[in-house]
Amino acid sequence: MPLGQRQGDNGESRYCGAEAAWSSDIQDSLSFALSGAFDFIIAPLTDPSYRPSKAKRDPEGSAIVPPFAGSDLVLSPSQWSSHIVGKLSGWLDLDSHDELVRSDSETTIKQEAAWASHLSLQACLLPTPRPLNCGNYARCVNQVLQGLTSMQLWLRIPLVSPELEAAQGTEEEDRLFLERDEITGRFKNDTWEWWNMFRTLCEHHSQLSVALDITAELPSPSSLRRWIGEPLKAAILHTSAFLTNKRGYPCLSRQHQHLITTLFSHNVQIVLSGTCLHHVDQPPSTAIDPSSFGGNGTEDVAYSKHPLKPYLEYIAYLYRKMDPPDEQERFEMGYRDFLQAPLQPLMDNLEAQTYETFEKDSTKYSQYQKAVHAALLDRVPDRMVSTTTTVLMVVGAGRGPLVRASLQAAHETGRKLRVYAVEKNPNAVVTLHSLIKLEGWENVVTVISCDMRRWNAPEQADILVSELLGSFGDNELSPECLDGAQRFLKQDGISIPSSYTSFIGPITASKLHNDVKSYADLAHFETAYVVKFHSVARLAPPQPVFTFEHPNFDAPLDNRRYVKLKFELSPDTGSALVHGFGGYFDAVLYKDVHLGIEPSTATPNMFSWFAIFFPLRKPIYMPAGSVLELHFWRCIAPSKVWYEWAVTAPSVSPVHNVNGRSYWVGL
Amino acid sequence: MPLGQRQGDNGESRYCGAEAAWSSDIQDSLSFALSGAFDFIIAPLTDPSYRPSKAKRDPEGSAIVPPFAGSDLVLSPSQWSSHIVGKLSGWLDLDSHDELVRSDSETTIKQEAAWASHLSLQACLLPTPRPLNCGNYARCVNQVLQGLTSMQLWLRIPLVSPELEAAQGTEEEDRLFLERDEITGRFKNDTWEWWNMFRTLCEHHSQLSVALDITAELPSPSSLRRWIGEPLKAAILHTSAFLTNKRGYPCLSRQHQHLITTLFSHNVQIVLSGTCLHHVDQPPSTAIDPSSFGGNGTEDVAYSKHPLKPYLEYIAYLYRKMDPPDEQERFEMGYRDFLQAPLQPLMDNLEAQTYETFEKDSTKYSQYQKAVHAALLDRVPDRMVSTTTTVLMVVGAGRGPLVRASLQAAHETGRKLRVYAVEKNPNAVVTLHSLIKLEGWENVVTVISCDMRRWNAPEQADILVSELLGSFGDNELSPECLDGAQRFLKQDGISIPSSYTSFIGPITASKLHNDVKSYADLAHFETAYVVKFHSVARLAPPQPVFTFEHPNFDAPLDNRRYVKLKFELSPDTGSALVHGFGGYFDAVLYKDVHLGIEPSTATPNMFSWFAIFFPLRKPIYMPAGSVLELHFWRCIAPSKVWYEWAVTAPSVSPVHNVNGRSYWVGL
Repeated sequence: MPLGQRQGDNGESRYCGAEAAWSSDIQDSLSFALSGAFDFIIAPLTDPSYRPSKAKRDPEGSAIVPPFAGSDLVLSPSQWSSHIVGKLSGWLDLDSHDELVRSDSETTIKQEAAWASHLSLQACLLPTPRPLNCGNYARCVNQVLQGLTSMQLWLRIPLVSPELEAAQGTEEEDRLFLERDEITGRFKNDTWEWWNMFRTLCEHHSQLSVALDITAELPSPSSLRRWIGEPLKAAILHTSAFLTNKRGYPCLSRQHQHLITTLFSHNVQIVLSGTCLHHVDQPPSTAIDPSSFGGNGTEDVAYSKHPLKPYLEYIAYLYRKMDPPDEQERFEMGYRDFLQAPLQPLMDNLEAQTYETFEKDSTKYSQYQKAVHAALLDRVPDRMVSTTTTVLMVVGAGRGPLVRASLQAAHETGRKLRVYAVEKNPNAVVTLHSLIKLEGWENVVTVISCDMRRWNAPEQADILVSELLGSFGDNELSPECLDGAQRFLKQDGISIPSSYTSFIGPITASKLHNDVKSYADLAHFETAYVVKFHSVARLAPPQPVFTFEHPNFDAPLDNRRYVKLKFELSPDTGSALVHGFGGYFDAVLYKDVHLGIEPSTATPNMFSWFAIFFPLRKPIYMPAGSVLELHFWRCIAPSKVWYEWAVTAPSVSPVHNVNGRSYWVGL
Repeated sequence: MPLGQRQGDNGESRYCGAEAAWSSDIQDSLSFALSGAFDFIIAPLTDPSYRPSKAKRDPEGSAIVPPFAGSDLVLSPSQWSSHIVGKLSGWLDLDSHDELVRSDSETTIKQEAAWASHLSLQACLLPTPRPLNCGNYARCVNQVLQGLTSMQLWLRIPLVSPELEAAQGTEEEDRLFLERDEITGRFKNDTWEWWNMFRTLCEHHSQLSVALDITAELPSPSSLRRWIGEPLKAAILHTSAFLTNKRGYPCLSRQHQHLITTLFSHNVQIVLSGTCLHHVDQPPSTAIDPSSFGGNGTEDVAYSKHPLKPYLEYIAYLYRKMDPPDEQERFEMGYRDFLQAPLQPLMDNLEAQTYETFEKDSTKYSQYQKAVHAALLDRVPDRMVSTTTTVLMVVGAGRGPLVRASLQAAHETGRKLRVYAVEKNPNAVVTLHSLIKLEGWENVVTVISCDMRRWNAPEQADILVSELLGSFGDNELSPECLDGAQRFLKQDGISIPSSYTSFIGPITASKLHNDVKSYADLAHFETAYVVKFHSVARLAPPQPVFTFEHPNFDAPLDNRRYVKLKFELSPDTGSALVHGFGGYFDAVLYKDVHLGIEPSTATPNMFSWFAIFFPLRKPIYMPAGSVLELHFWRCIAPSKVWYEWAVTAPSVSPVHNVNGRSYWVGL
């Protein structure tokens, strides 16, 4: 039964599993686990003593069918697919020096995968590969992956290498963590390296994921964090990971608790494993009807007897005590890790629905109101309030939210305002006119249906207010628009925003990268996407990229830019894979009033902007402690603006999006 | 005028150029060089003092056109394209810290490239990039490359870094050679690294090549060798590279001579550069008519006056003293570095033309004759000659060359033979019958029109002779065919060949890789090609891969194979790029009679096999002294055999050709 109900959360992580030992009666194993309130089991499919080379052969020399658990009839199809994760034989060793072991392993893994596929299992658990020595295993799994329809393969990886775990607390620990493999030069005891080599050989196949073994020892927080960007499906939590509370019940350390809740919120299923180390009296079980799990109700297995029940109850307790998602989170859930093409508001006209969504962002307009408020106070001293009318132009007025914010600021400050609302989208202008009539602003606001770059203004403005920023600041061509509009700004006039800066940082985002790859063309790998990052690991703090200031009276105006940035992967992170870059912006609206989504300074409760994702055509491996050197360009041609990007360390990528061939913003 | 005439050689390297200084009269520069017997000049296109930011502007603010050499009319279109390589301004520095220099450089490089393109020049020479700091320069060149039709860009790279050259002979030299750049971790003083970073950023564009500057100092032979696999178009040989002979004339060291002849034979053009350091009396010039080079004959520039003439004459002397290509070389010239799909002789029937070509390889059949000779002597002692008839079966007899070789061996040894010629191709069988009639072999040879795997032989054979080997030994399924045929071999019978082994080694082969890439699909990157390697650099000695022995009475027979190989790049090579692997074979026909193409033991004067090329989807960078770990599999399914391959060090590749999806040999 699910661990609990959280509003709006329909994720997989509500379901908790148990790792079961080999049994020739899988129906019994399953009933036992269901009776203990588990939702599924990870169970071996084959007798562990089976070896193809020792199998009986018929008189013709063909091998007898291997001893799979009974027949497919022992469970119903829906039981197989909902409640069983197949566990491939633990003795499989495809990179053994022994040719017979290799050959037996290859035969068996293919038989077991075919059997699991035949049963329509959702997933199979693959045994842990040898550290950095998995070429043949990966080749074989890769062959299997090509033939699968929907079944997932979960590669079992310990979160901490057994060698490191054994050395815990000794002087050896640090040395071991940075010990390199002689051939590959990779870090032997960083188990992420094991995973990375395996999945790279399998070409990042989308049906290959990770199941992490979690024991008492945890790596550093930054080392843990990189896993969030990996295709993590399950965490196998061992009973040895648990502490004992005062009453003798199992509980987890604060770090473990934090890890488990992070996993919950990233849709990772918990699987309990190991022997019971806490012999406590079971509390009276809450109403569980085994028949609701497909059992026939005749098994008299006492609910309370499952040895892992106390652990499950603790996990359910952790699940239920999580804060329910707030309104913004619920809004964003549907967008998590979902690629969206960025808007082209200059070339295209926005739709009513888009205006509707953005206008709801009260935080954003309240920041604008603060900025106009401060600008008006600076612009018009108290003694001149009655004699001065400030000319304020909203360029890109849309359906009027900035007009409203500006008028409210004028009202607050008691300053007189003459407003021009310039808007190029004739459809928005219709609504704008109607708003002005409705609000009785006819004397104050003039609507101009024109592109700001082409408008001949009747007078010069004191204040130019605009909201032309994209997720990456300048990516919706705010610089070009405002350069065009500043013709009608007084020399000492104010632009709100007065400046904005884009930020960028390397990320692990296997899901996003696979989604880009599924388009199967170059253009999608050279396009930026708007994305609500969720299962994304930030590998280093974002750094500033390009800054634009307004007004800008340089001659000639040059909005081309080039930066070279260096990101360092802290050694305690271990190694990581960079799938691309997360982009953000921060804008100074006026003096200390800012607005932005750069994670360290992001304006809270604002939902108008998600981050932007610049993919890499081929993910880049970063060894622990290495430096990534990123080049970023903003290029301009007569009819378009685009970015190009390239990496020159730790390895060299081609320049992406040359001449804006794949992705550009029209002028 | 060309350096000389060599039979069958129509390569570019017959033409020699001179580097010219800036002149506002390019016609004069060209005439002067042609009069000195040069074929072309590398000449600046723009006044070196030109800077866009300082250029005069018209009243509207637009820049005046830059000062290109006169107009396009000063030379005829054919003169521009045959005799001028444009030299882009030497001051260009796109990775300067100074933004103005960067901006001027970008403007100029684009103007110059556009001008050169307008003139239909065949190539432009690009100035040397900053060591490992070329991101912006490469981005800009990459943009230019996208717009070019046929013009080549030659990136100028010193063969030895100036810093290393200065340290020559000091203790510093070794340290400098292995000094790494702080950010990229690459070897700063290995100029190949400069090239590699640049071309990787430009995505291995096929119009981007190298022009190497050669001075007095040369790197180690293995360091030189890797350049042969790169797109090397020109070598700019400085007068400082020359020594002085007893008579005061310029000459080159033995190593330099060797390098120059290697360049000649790889179609690399020599360009002389620098000031004259050997003031010798010019010999009377041989008949040179400047008008034949497009000059109008009115310039009275004395032929003898070109200061680089003595150097040119030495180069021409080197060219002319090269050995003319022998018959085999002339045969192979047309096949050099040309991708051919490997034969599928089992699934397809060969054509008459193919038989014709292969039958001409007398070396091959003479080796077979030696092998049968030795086998007959071993099989039939002298005392039993008259009483014993040896049963010899040629499996895959084709049009009969092995039948002939076997009968000749029988004749030599005086042994009696009964021959069965088994052939599955009914078309070849027609010719085979006619041969036997023609030669009067009817009493000795029986023709069997049948697949050897299915034939029911009337008796058991003493000797089984076959020629089923491909360039990679087993790649045309010799193991499967012979396993099928050995049913009718006596238990103590002999198979010729008795064993064969494939070999493989990493290579730099930019031309081949670009040719594969031009197919623009995955399948071609996962296919092996038969290729006459020429502009290919072997980075490490080939190593044995798979061995098959015949007869093979193992049960069950298993022709699947897996090896893991380690190749080390010697530190004095510097770093290199691996585009794929060169494959070869060596076969033991019988005892000490072998046959093969593995470079270190290759049978001389044999042309039946070229090497085989296994590409990598993405070239792999190997730092100096690193180890490459290669995995190679031979996989078998009921109807096909295929290879898979992957690299796990120094970086990890995906497994290539999974399940034989791109390339396989049908059973």
